[in-house]
Amino acid sequence: MKYLAKIKYLGTNFCGFQVQPNARTVQGELTRAMSELFGAPCKITGCSRTDSGVHANEHVTVIDAPGATVPPERLPLAASRFLPDDISLFYAIKCDDTFHPRYDVVSKEYLYVIKNQSVKDPFWVGRAWFISRPIDEKSLTLMRSAAKHFIGKHDFAAFMSEGSDVSDTVRTVFDLRIEKDGDTLRVRISADGFLYNMVRIIVGTLVEVANGRIKSDSIPDIIYSRDRSRAGITSPPDGLYLNRVNYRLPDFQ
Amino acid sequence: MKYLAKIKYLGTNFCGFQVQPNARTVQGELTRAMSELFGAPCKITGCSRTDSGVHANEHVTVIDAPGATVPPERLPLAASRFLPDDISLFYAIKCDDTFHPRYDVVSKEYLYVIKNQSVKDPFWVGRAWFISRPIDEKSLTLMRSAAKHFIGKHDFAAFMSEGSDVSDTVRTVFDLRIEKDGDTLRVRISADGFLYNMVRIIVGTLVEVANGRIKSDSIPDIIYSRDRSRAGITSPPDGLYLNRVNYRLPDFQ
Repeated sequence: MKYLAKIKYLGTNFCGFQVQPNARTVQGELTRAMSELFGAPCKITGCSRTDSGVHANEHVTVIDAPGATVPPERLPLAASRFLPDDISLFYAIKCDDTFHPRYDVVSKEYLYVIKNQSVKDPFWVGRAWFISRPIDEKSLTLMRSAAKHFIGKHDFAAFMSEGSDVSDTVRTVFDLRIEKDGDTLRVRISADGFLYNMVRIIVGTLVEVANGRIKSDSIPDIIYSRDRSRAGITSPPDGLYLNRVNYRLPDFQ
Repeated sequence: MKYLAKIKYLGTNFCGFQVQPNARTVQGELTRAMSELFGAPCKITGCSRTDSGVHANEHVTVIDAPGATVPPERLPLAASRFLPDDISLFYAIKCDDTFHPRYDVVSKEYLYVIKNQSVKDPFWVGRAWFISRPIDEKSLTLMRSAAKHFIGKHDFAAFMSEGSDVSDTVRTVFDLRIEKDGDTLRVRISADGFLYNMVRIIVGTLVEVANGRIKSDSIPDIIYSRDRSRAGITSPPDGLYLNRVNYRLPDFQ
């Protein structure tokens, strides 16, 4: 059977999603756990190759398990006995043969958490970007004004790290919002797809706008330049969460 | 100088608060860090000896640092360079010589987090008690009805683990509330003091009330019996957080 499953993982102790020799990865652990559960080799295809230290509140994977008979609704509990503490599989349905978790994505949402505090909260270490310099209401207004420029269909080449073989760098950002709750900032960004490190560079740029190093109204020029050196720093992976993946599937919640 | 400081810690990798030979403890790490910061031995007195795996959102300690000249308002940032990632010191004022962080407590609040889910959320491992059997509205009503019986001045001997040398087992519980938010239950309990494992046994008892193994209206009898075997199980340390400590001090926030 092929399952379409949703998983959650704490990225701290993983060298990213994609399987690699001699490294602990989400795909590696998932492949091992599912092969143990079904007693036969399984193939895992993920919706996204998150980087080392990046988390997922919702990551969609296809588990190709030939001969498997576990009903999809029982898969979460069955899988929990084989998965490590830092991965959970919390939803599964039967997967259509034609479905692909990466190619069929309509939109993805990432969440980026910033803790604006001078002393690191131990409960957020590895789970947020700590910024000690205060981001006041004025800086937040600048960030929000900068954020608006990213929305829409643009060539985001200036917001892509090297090391990617993508040729088409045009993406459509559907939404980019910054929520503030006490000393926590949450940046939510949804798009039809993301370039390598795109969210982390956008967040790094927004923080440089807050700090006054980049002007909020220079964002259109930076996008137009396609020049990585004009955008902001790449923010750390710790604060990044793959939050939601949407498909055009009627039975997918 | 003597400082009155508030600290926060993630208890997962500590063998509790109190210093012990050959074990990593909060008091041990704090003593080492402060002695390194001030370049002279310091003495740490905490408000509570939390157990192994128990967390603190707010733990009050007195740091006796003879000869120290760091102004209290600069202590949080100065301390952060010497403390490990799982402890933070986020507030400090000058401490009066007569103040004692344990004897002078007016009230303490503990928070206990339960995740009522069949599959463990990786972001809560070590930080909550996972209960897979569903706690429905009816069970929650029973728990809340049981909770009311704990409020007031009682002899809580039935809710104390062995291994304590306390002779007076009378305590006053000021409040005991259960909040529900999705699949998360938060139990908040405040009292003038707590016996050894008292919060964990009360929470274990409330969960047995939810499961129907203990009747909610039998709580007064269980309290009256002073018999540990009649109360519920000791819940795991993972879900327990020392949340707030109150003193009669005008300049203490």
